[in-house]
Amino acid sequence: MSRPGRTRSPRRMVIVGGDAAGMSAASQARRLCPPEELEIVAFERGDHTSYSACGIPYWVAGDVTDRDELVARSPQEHRERGIDVRTRTEVTALDVQGSRVRTREGGSGREEWTGYDELVLATGARPIRPPLPGIDAEGVHAVQTLGDGERLLADLAALDRRRADERPRAVVVGAGYIGVEMAEALLRHGYRVTLVDRAEEPMTTLDPDMGAHVREALNRLEVATALGSAVTGLETDAEGRVRAVTTETDRHEAELVVLGMGVRPLTDLARDAGLPLGDSGGVLTDLAMRVRGHDNIWAAGDCVEVLDRITGAHRHIPLGTHANKQGQVVGRNIGGDYATFPGVVGTAVSKVCELEIGRTGLLEAQARAAGLRWVTVTVEATSRAGYYPGAAPMRVKLLAERRTGRLLGVQIVGREGAGKRVDIAAVALTAGMTVEQMTMLDLGYAPPFSPVWDPVLVAARKAVSAVREAG
Amino acid sequence: MSRPGRTRSPRRMVIVGGDAAGMSAASQARRLCPPEELEIVAFERGDHTSYSACGIPYWVAGDVTDRDELVARSPQEHRERGIDVRTRTEVTALDVQGSRVRTREGGSGREEWTGYDELVLATGARPIRPPLPGIDAEGVHAVQTLGDGERLLADLAALDRRRADERPRAVVVGAGYIGVEMAEALLRHGYRVTLVDRAEEPMTTLDPDMGAHVREALNRLEVATALGSAVTGLETDAEGRVRAVTTETDRHEAELVVLGMGVRPLTDLARDAGLPLGDSGGVLTDLAMRVRGHDNIWAAGDCVEVLDRITGAHRHIPLGTHANKQGQVVGRNIGGDYATFPGVVGTAVSKVCELEIGRTGLLEAQARAAGLRWVTVTVEATSRAGYYPGAAPMRVKLLAERRTGRLLGVQIVGREGAGKRVDIAAVALTAGMTVEQMTMLDLGYAPPFSPVWDPVLVAARKAVSAVREAG
Repeated sequence: MSRPGRTRSPRRMVIVGGDAAGMSAASQARRLCPPEELEIVAFERGDHTSYSACGIPYWVAGDVTDRDELVARSPQEHRERGIDVRTRTEVTALDVQGSRVRTREGGSGREEWTGYDELVLATGARPIRPPLPGIDAEGVHAVQTLGDGERLLADLAALDRRRADERPRAVVVGAGYIGVEMAEALLRHGYRVTLVDRAEEPMTTLDPDMGAHVREALNRLEVATALGSAVTGLETDAEGRVRAVTTETDRHEAELVVLGMGVRPLTDLARDAGLPLGDSGGVLTDLAMRVRGHDNIWAAGDCVEVLDRITGAHRHIPLGTHANKQGQVVGRNIGGDYATFPGVVGTAVSKVCELEIGRTGLLEAQARAAGLRWVTVTVEATSRAGYYPGAAPMRVKLLAERRTGRLLGVQIVGREGAGKRVDIAAVALTAGMTVEQMTMLDLGYAPPFSPVWDPVLVAARKAVSAVREAG
Repeated sequence: MSRPGRTRSPRRMVIVGGDAAGMSAASQARRLCPPEELEIVAFERGDHTSYSACGIPYWVAGDVTDRDELVARSPQEHRERGIDVRTRTEVTALDVQGSRVRTREGGSGREEWTGYDELVLATGARPIRPPLPGIDAEGVHAVQTLGDGERLLADLAALDRRRADERPRAVVVGAGYIGVEMAEALLRHGYRVTLVDRAEEPMTTLDPDMGAHVREALNRLEVATALGSAVTGLETDAEGRVRAVTTETDRHEAELVVLGMGVRPLTDLARDAGLPLGDSGGVLTDLAMRVRGHDNIWAAGDCVEVLDRITGAHRHIPLGTHANKQGQVVGRNIGGDYATFPGVVGTAVSKVCELEIGRTGLLEAQARAAGLRWVTVTVEATSRAGYYPGAAPMRVKLLAERRTGRLLGVQIVGREGAGKRVDIAAVALTAGMTVEQMTMLDLGYAPPFSPVWDPVLVAARKAVSAVREAG
């Protein structure tokens, strides 16, 4: 492969962003190429590398006691493996023509240009933080970085010291998976929690009818839900601390507010450099994770859009598991091997106390947008043989394409054993199976694990009839 | 379709054996055909229909308190749905030429012939019970039927009343999944349990190296294992009650013995009638579950051999989940619909106390017998993110075909979350995926459910390298 721009021995791989995607790419390339062939420099504007942002709610909840447990590999550990990690160093500009990036060191403020042979953009995502009155008040927290988690835990400790007899109140804005996980974390701290979202039901990664079951379960857990009304602002007290969240219809008093309104790709650098972005603002790549039209620029993680294997559309799905895979693909390709990231089917699992939520494939709205026609079925079944202790009810909703009977999506709400059951459907979707084929899947059966017909197969059986009846 | 033999209105479907396979066929056919079109007669030599033999160990353990919980549908419930169930009625002969079966009623001893348009053989399997000295002694139990379970529970209660201060001793002969489940059940009754098997490791549904981990886990649970030495006989006391099990090398005293030596297809009726049987004695069928060469005879459940989708061989794999599926296929075909049972990939899960065991696809010995060449990898990983409470270690062994990299099998030994993870591999096997394809599967990820790389994907990644290195 001929490469434009500077050449030199060793080649230099420059990474922008030292979290999962970027450092996976670095580690994988290092494994394939010795330092005399490939120099690897990673710029990270924060202090940490390779940490699990997905673990922050569990750290706040107290399930994880030490922040460092969330760090898979520290900057020093990466350096010992031959990766030149520069923390507190922000990349401020990308010069595509010159194959170089401009950096500013946080401490000294020193700016300089660094040339690259291969560039990896792994700039991640930024939490959505609408410009509402009071949004920057004290007591309003995001949960994206380890620093966010530290600030929230410190605030919780401070509030705890001041706490009156009454249970303190928290509002979580955004009822997606971060929101519901944070609701649990705050319950564990003894808070009365209200989950606020402009959507009519929580978990818009589910169809509303399945979201309704999540809402009911949240209410049973004593999480209040205030849905269908957008936040209009945050009230502050005389000291500038948040004291209430106002919506179009209500006012919710709170000593603490957590924002879980989702994230957007952080792609200013890419945009300013003229790299191609998709509808949701993520960098567009080919299957090898090379930025479209740029031979020596790669992108991975929360800053990219991923191919939806079912519809062919590109979507922004920020998830650590994709970031790791994409980073590995980039590292293999830069290291001289070959790999592709073939896209996703949209699998996600979450947990709130005993409640487990899983989904994969398309929602009804997504199927409609893709021009598909489909049937839906919903079944109730149990996680284990009905007579086995701990058998918990679960609800499975399944979408199948009309005529072909091809599986389009599965959503599951239940308790223990519900969440990871979507993996069955995730693999079946990847393989393009029909519901008829699924009914005969040879899944693990024993009374402590499953009824004799696994709940996913019960849904598939019902869908076979629905496809036939729909004609 | 033209049918040989007698014709009449309504047609008559005769079922031999009223358990999962037979009654699934009956129920499915009844759903599709009203009584005026199809008469359904089911002969069952015992008292019960549609019960879960797989649930017996949990009933004995005390997890299930009432025998009737194991009965999915009683004879009376089937009758109310328009199925003429005749319990305590044994089918003693099959006249294929005359399209009729001879029955003997248990009570009256009355014998008669019943003609059929469609015959379903669902005669099940019989526990292996070698003709050893003392095998029929009091205190020696099988666990195949509800009657077996009742007798064992009565014996346990009687022994309990007589129990001295010392912990009573039990020997379980056969260290397969029934054996290990019964070991747990007897532990729960306070027994010291010794598991005896002539194989060198327990669970011969796993490769020996994985079986060794099961043995270690059993030993940690204080189940003694006496392996690699076949049972030679059972000693009895003056009252004719078992008091010890002798093997080629040892003698194990026991107040109670449970036989879990596996089962064989119960196909005397089929053999006597000249129906085709496979190498393990099971009835051979086509994909629609029609007995080969016989247009109006069908077979389903533990009495048949199933197609192994990976090797094309036919194997005897007695499992309730296959019986239910096959019965349903037969019922759909007889009822005028169309369905096939496409075969199995050999998935099985079991549990002993906290230990979970899963397997799917081929063992090394099976791959060898099929003429395949393969690589194996074994990885250790955790069921959840390493930092999340309850993350339990699990060991995953994976076989992939040389050159093609096609997945051939997965074995998992671990704790919570280990067993059902084989479903991922079961679906991937069904779809014929390569390990390279598997590495990019979009599986459910969140810290309480999985590390960012699911253990199955970690094994797949390692297998990709192994396939390449093997060349």
